[in-house]
Amino acid sequence: MPSVLPLSAALLSLLTTAPRAPAPEAVTGPSLQVAERLIGAALTEGRAYARLAELTDGIGPRLAGSEGEKAAVQWAKRSFEADGVKVWLEPVKVPRWVRGEESGRVLASERYRAHPLALMALGGSVGTPAKGLTAEVIEVRSLEEVAALGEKVKGKVVLFNHSMSVAADYGKAAALRTRGASVAAKAGAVGMLVRSLATASLRSPHTGAMRYEEGVPQIPAAAVSVEDAELLHRLLAGGPVKVELKLGCRTLPDVDSFNVVAEVPGREKPREVVLLGAHLDSWDVGTGAHDDGAGVVMVMETARLIGKLNPAPRRTVRVVLFANEENGLRGGRAYAEAHAGELGNHVAALEMDAGGYKPLGVVLRAGPGGAELVGPWLKPLEALGAGSILPGEAGGADISPLIPARVPFVGVRVDSSRYFDVHHSEADTLDKVDPKDLAQATAAVAWVSYVLAEVPGVLPRPEAPPAEAPKAPAAAPKSSAP
Amino acid sequence: MPSVLPLSAALLSLLTTAPRAPAPEAVTGPSLQVAERLIGAALTEGRAYARLAELTDGIGPRLAGSEGEKAAVQWAKRSFEADGVKVWLEPVKVPRWVRGEESGRVLASERYRAHPLALMALGGSVGTPAKGLTAEVIEVRSLEEVAALGEKVKGKVVLFNHSMSVAADYGKAAALRTRGASVAAKAGAVGMLVRSLATASLRSPHTGAMRYEEGVPQIPAAAVSVEDAELLHRLLAGGPVKVELKLGCRTLPDVDSFNVVAEVPGREKPREVVLLGAHLDSWDVGTGAHDDGAGVVMVMETARLIGKLNPAPRRTVRVVLFANEENGLRGGRAYAEAHAGELGNHVAALEMDAGGYKPLGVVLRAGPGGAELVGPWLKPLEALGAGSILPGEAGGADISPLIPARVPFVGVRVDSSRYFDVHHSEADTLDKVDPKDLAQATAAVAWVSYVLAEVPGVLPRPEAPPAEAPKAPAAAPKSSAP
Repeated sequence: MPSVLPLSAALLSLLTTAPRAPAPEAVTGPSLQVAERLIGAALTEGRAYARLAELTDGIGPRLAGSEGEKAAVQWAKRSFEADGVKVWLEPVKVPRWVRGEESGRVLASERYRAHPLALMALGGSVGTPAKGLTAEVIEVRSLEEVAALGEKVKGKVVLFNHSMSVAADYGKAAALRTRGASVAAKAGAVGMLVRSLATASLRSPHTGAMRYEEGVPQIPAAAVSVEDAELLHRLLAGGPVKVELKLGCRTLPDVDSFNVVAEVPGREKPREVVLLGAHLDSWDVGTGAHDDGAGVVMVMETARLIGKLNPAPRRTVRVVLFANEENGLRGGRAYAEAHAGELGNHVAALEMDAGGYKPLGVVLRAGPGGAELVGPWLKPLEALGAGSILPGEAGGADISPLIPARVPFVGVRVDSSRYFDVHHSEADTLDKVDPKDLAQATAAVAWVSYVLAEVPGVLPRPEAPPAEAPKAPAAAPKSSAP
Repeated sequence: MPSVLPLSAALLSLLTTAPRAPAPEAVTGPSLQVAERLIGAALTEGRAYARLAELTDGIGPRLAGSEGEKAAVQWAKRSFEADGVKVWLEPVKVPRWVRGEESGRVLASERYRAHPLALMALGGSVGTPAKGLTAEVIEVRSLEEVAALGEKVKGKVVLFNHSMSVAADYGKAAALRTRGASVAAKAGAVGMLVRSLATASLRSPHTGAMRYEEGVPQIPAAAVSVEDAELLHRLLAGGPVKVELKLGCRTLPDVDSFNVVAEVPGREKPREVVLLGAHLDSWDVGTGAHDDGAGVVMVMETARLIGKLNPAPRRTVRVVLFANEENGLRGGRAYAEAHAGELGNHVAALEMDAGGYKPLGVVLRAGPGGAELVGPWLKPLEALGAGSILPGEAGGADISPLIPARVPFVGVRVDSSRYFDVHHSEADTLDKVDPKDLAQATAAVAWVSYVLAEVPGVLPRPEAPPAEAPKAPAAAPKSSAP
């Protein structure tokens, strides 16, 4: 069901009073009548939640290269077409990793009976031999500790434990998940476990991407539930602990997929592009409702609502539903490569990939003066509690390849405090998304997108990054891992 | 690790001031020096949490008739012996139900792709054919609705949905789980699903007991996660929904097990028994930390602490760790039968089976005057927030067979508001138990038990129950199902 919220009198009054904007000059700025239409429509006849139900209940999980992903691409194309929004597919080769059967257990000892382990292989992991891998566990709290342990790691399964308890801890803990296997393998480990990166747990493991360093033996890697990480910790306090891991995962040859690209051409400067991104793929567990179905429907709905404006905004609003954010970032890279020639005309990029939660405000990654350009136009979002520029930096994994081209980033920050309760787990399902929050975030994205496409000036471009490879800015609650 | 709490100055002062008790007469009442020793010991050198770790991490799940249950019986016996408490085993034939492999899915339709179902067979359910059972789902909200649907139920899998959201909803929802399969089968259903009886969910199903009515076809029955019940509800709004269930569960012949009985003989009236109960069995998922490992260690610790008193209390304190509470209540029935001749001398029975949470106070099921007998002696529990008689009725599934003999019941009520987040699920593990809460509840149980064994009078016996079969009183957050 789409969320239907009555427009409050306060919001209506905001929509009809002047913002604290510079006085319009010869070139007119964003129109407050448009604020009324975009925000009003997103909150009253918005299709975001109904679309999200189609994507999650109708299609389900959509890991890169899977049948679900293919279905999602076709669904997105059909949906844009139904909305009257110009849409096309851009080819992307994506990795094809399959989970297979998986299980783990703590083997019985004199001190305790056997325990099953609630685990999930990390995306990209190699499997174990079919008969499983059996080894003693050694527990560490950091990548650095592995090296310090030296010989003790040899032949062991390294358990990366950590103390993630709030969403803000994700970035740090994600390094253990992403890099832990190779760090452990270099020290002679035969397997790797990481405590799930979760802010709530009912013995529910959370998967996620990992990557192997070149030239280092590839060892099987899995996330265990918080409960089982704590069990292993307690058992290890009493002496040696052996586990058996059976991971049936493997990587098949790359397959063809697509970025789904849609746009509303600008009326005056069609070559200037405001890019709105989200990723269409999800993990193979749960249905990717928050990650990133919510982002997908927010930017699709934005395109639909802006597409109905007459006249269209000054600049082109382009939506990209990226392929393969979760386990490869191939979509983000393919877009940057295919559109290298026009990135100088990308005046802003905004990625929604932190869940379908209540909007809190706007963040930027731009040169000096960016806040002054955008800030005055946020007044129509005040009644939604999202009318301010917030500290922190905009970012997003899929748009991170645009950093070298100095594309300014804009973000609508949402309240992601409960995101990691469900992120990358079986629990990331539609019921976790509040239709009211999703509608409000959609309204904010629609209005901010329109402002970027209509405001007379453009955001100053940020500094060129250091020569090193681009990384996703820390502000996005996503691993910087591809 | 055992919990170590400093005794607050306030508590110490309480322990050394007089309670609002009737002035001691010729026969002395409970001693406040004993309060100091029992409560102080439970809070400072208590072994409850360490014991709970032995039971949950060391032994793990312990469903009736399983190897885990056998290990738990031997562990309990050894532990009482180590504590110097007299212990013996009393034989009980228990059912042997095994889960086997299980899975379920929503079959793909034109409207949606296939979805896996997170489910768990209900204890006692028959299995499906090996190739699975496929049928359309029909959703109901009550047992009554099944009959109202008439022919529409025929050949269907009935989904019992409900709106349980807080612990207090358990009793009502449990009737769906316990009786739903036979109610559905009478109407021609071929399978039964029930939304998990849970107050939190991360797609985590909760099992529990069910029973078949005699003469009604036995159909497979499972609990689905809250998320999947909601998914089915949403899909059903759009048209027919088919599911496939594969349940490998089955019931094997009964096996021999035991109630573990331990006691501290009374110094003056050894034939008068204060019975302290908890159940040693658990479900086969999780490790039964709250249900009912916590209760087990509270009453074991009470026996240890009271066993160290010199002189012993006036009456006998007997601990019974019941077999097979979860899926048969055979232990509770066997005790009532084996001890039928002495139930007239059972002056009180107290069962701890609502989790290892903070104590809130004391409840009774006794004749008029019970509160006046016990209430004045609860002052030493005031600093723990448990010093009052609370409204509601004491009970417990295992002691419910003592109701016809009019045994007075006493309960230490704990804060079970989060119990059903984990109850009967994989998440009922040691990490969910707060050592401080467990120690405080243990202190309360120890003191109340001593009071019952030492107070000059005895609780007035409650009214005889109606002629019908006994049921567990509603006050205990347990199904009344055997």
